[in-house]
Amino acid sequence: MIIENSLDEVKKRETSLKIIKSIINAHGRDNLYDFTGLSGGFLATTDDLNLLETYVGPAIFEEKLQYLGKVHLGGEKIFPVNRTSSGILATILALVPRNSCVIHFVPELPSHPSILRSCKLKNANYIEFDDISRFHTPQNTSLIIITGATMDHKVIDEEIFEKIIAKAKEKEIPVLVDDASGARLRTAIYKQKKAIELGADLVVTSTDKLMMGPRGGLIGGKTELIDEIKACATKFGLEAQPPTILAMVNGLESYNENNLLNSIEKRNKLIKILKNDFKYFEESPTGVMISENSLKKEIANQNIETTFSPKDLCFLWAMILLKQEHIITIPAVAMPGASATVRFDLASNDALKLDIAILQDKIKNSFKYLLKIATDEEVAKDILFNCE
Amino acid sequence: MIIENSLDEVKKRETSLKIIKSIINAHGRDNLYDFTGLSGGFLATTDDLNLLETYVGPAIFEEKLQYLGKVHLGGEKIFPVNRTSSGILATILALVPRNSCVIHFVPELPSHPSILRSCKLKNANYIEFDDISRFHTPQNTSLIIITGATMDHKVIDEEIFEKIIAKAKEKEIPVLVDDASGARLRTAIYKQKKAIELGADLVVTSTDKLMMGPRGGLIGGKTELIDEIKACATKFGLEAQPPTILAMVNGLESYNENNLLNSIEKRNKLIKILKNDFKYFEESPTGVMISENSLKKEIANQNIETTFSPKDLCFLWAMILLKQEHIITIPAVAMPGASATVRFDLASNDALKLDIAILQDKIKNSFKYLLKIATDEEVAKDILFNCE
Repeated sequence: MIIENSLDEVKKRETSLKIIKSIINAHGRDNLYDFTGLSGGFLATTDDLNLLETYVGPAIFEEKLQYLGKVHLGGEKIFPVNRTSSGILATILALVPRNSCVIHFVPELPSHPSILRSCKLKNANYIEFDDISRFHTPQNTSLIIITGATMDHKVIDEEIFEKIIAKAKEKEIPVLVDDASGARLRTAIYKQKKAIELGADLVVTSTDKLMMGPRGGLIGGKTELIDEIKACATKFGLEAQPPTILAMVNGLESYNENNLLNSIEKRNKLIKILKNDFKYFEESPTGVMISENSLKKEIANQNIETTFSPKDLCFLWAMILLKQEHIITIPAVAMPGASATVRFDLASNDALKLDIAILQDKIKNSFKYLLKIATDEEVAKDILFNCE
Repeated sequence: MIIENSLDEVKKRETSLKIIKSIINAHGRDNLYDFTGLSGGFLATTDDLNLLETYVGPAIFEEKLQYLGKVHLGGEKIFPVNRTSSGILATILALVPRNSCVIHFVPELPSHPSILRSCKLKNANYIEFDDISRFHTPQNTSLIIITGATMDHKVIDEEIFEKIIAKAKEKEIPVLVDDASGARLRTAIYKQKKAIELGADLVVTSTDKLMMGPRGGLIGGKTELIDEIKACATKFGLEAQPPTILAMVNGLESYNENNLLNSIEKRNKLIKILKNDFKYFEESPTGVMISENSLKKEIANQNIETTFSPKDLCFLWAMILLKQEHIITIPAVAMPGASATVRFDLASNDALKLDIAILQDKIKNSFKYLLKIATDEEVAKDILFNCE
């Protein structure tokens, strides 16, 4: 293992940020291609900015956010948080009594680590399922969490969603839906209902995933629960700050389902041409991706034997894509514990400025280089941690 | 008690934000006077804004922040967090093992509640002192926290600071200094050394306190500790987001000790003229203030008997100041658990646009009205929770 723990992941991310800076300085922002699907941007006018002061900004933008947030998520009240992870932390700290039980249904394991981590702080008994037939709620269950779409964009079946809600209502247990990308993916692409319409009490989404918002989270739901979460969040400093709230307002205003739908057409083209050279690429809802284990198989399929872990191979490829091809993918820049799947999200803004055939070349070239160095630990470490 | 708990405080804050919005809409930003000393603002150029994307922004601003942060705080490495409270949470989650002991020295009790709250999540044994002669460190102490300056701007004695550091070094216990406003107050006004220069391992400051930065926190200190804190913070979503980092960079660049020093002269004028009508106003380092208990005494001194709690009286006065005089003070807009002391901070930007004699009138008029309604619970509730 080269990337062994969270500290290594932070170090790797720091390397990436420095590389990104040097690419922009040397080649300009136009020659950098962000395919993470997470890079929402920060939309603001000069008038907006003049109002961005600690206590004045939120007063102005709060009302707009309430309106737009409710249109987007449903629910009675909206609360903006610093990140989806901090929103999940606030919800668990506020609603889960010590030593009670939290049940989590995820369309496909593994789940996002932020839920288990937050549960540990309340010494809660955390149980997760991806098989509805095994789903049950112990007597002291204080919260049920449903993941609407996983980090790798696996989407929950709407019927299973409704089954869980029915069970929760029967036992009067509140339901939080982690709809980080799902709030758009499930609704725009899969034509499912909003989490709140399906009966959830709370939903949280990431305003930088599949929309032009800032990194941040938006919680919607019942006023009474939101008020409890908000009181807890402001105590620990988990709420979104004024500039983020402003960017959320503008991101929500500019959100348009059609941009997501267009990306599907591009995805179909790309996956078709990639099939000439690769065996294990898969479709994601708005792009193409290759998981840790699939990448290991893809390399084996080229008759290269490597002792590198599947995760390290993903990190390595992501760093080669960044350093040589100026393409940003999630494994290069993610926070610790995020999925290492290499994904090219065609709903990203930067997808508009790169022809599909050129993207194909960049993917092929960087993969060729990955094959070349996939057995050399010294070179690999240099790629992961050296900014030169 | 009218404001009984955190939920009430959140409700009161929401009322204030709506009032602020309606004042700006009806009278313009120029007729609103923010005397919190917390309203830093958001300085940014158009070029800055074009770079504000999730993964690209921090790459650009991170390097500048490292440089400017180290100039401001000292230390080997800087880490920006969403709020000082979230920085304290991250530090305690990262460095305090379960059931160990955290020692906190504060120049004058009560201490800021974020430290105790964070300790509870690790089931840590929390001990606080404001008397150095009682200071001791039990055997399983994992962290010593020193508050450099309290919420009410009471500043630590530098000799006591050094004594605690010496004890910590002897036992090899890391020291975090909560220098929220102290990083500027202690150094610019009291001519003390930076926390790191005095031997602290870590220091955290609020970039919106006594400087033109955004609401947010900045941690500085030893690389090894910062890396641990950062890994923990990014897991829970406690780090500052790109727009905040940008505003921190510009806030640090524009920081100038002389602005703080000028406010002292204004303070001396104001306290002198207030003494004509008030008995219990005190000086703060950069303004004037009246604590909960002093306000209760001030009202009694006018021969008004009220059953309202001292805290409620502060909240009420702050709301009258906002609604009738368009003056923002901390009790009107603070997060739950903050001090209810009514303070007029003359280092605030808006102090520049209000003559001292007019400010005196506004303080007098609003206090007269407070006396009038200080026995009427219905009117008081209306003032605290009604936005009309």
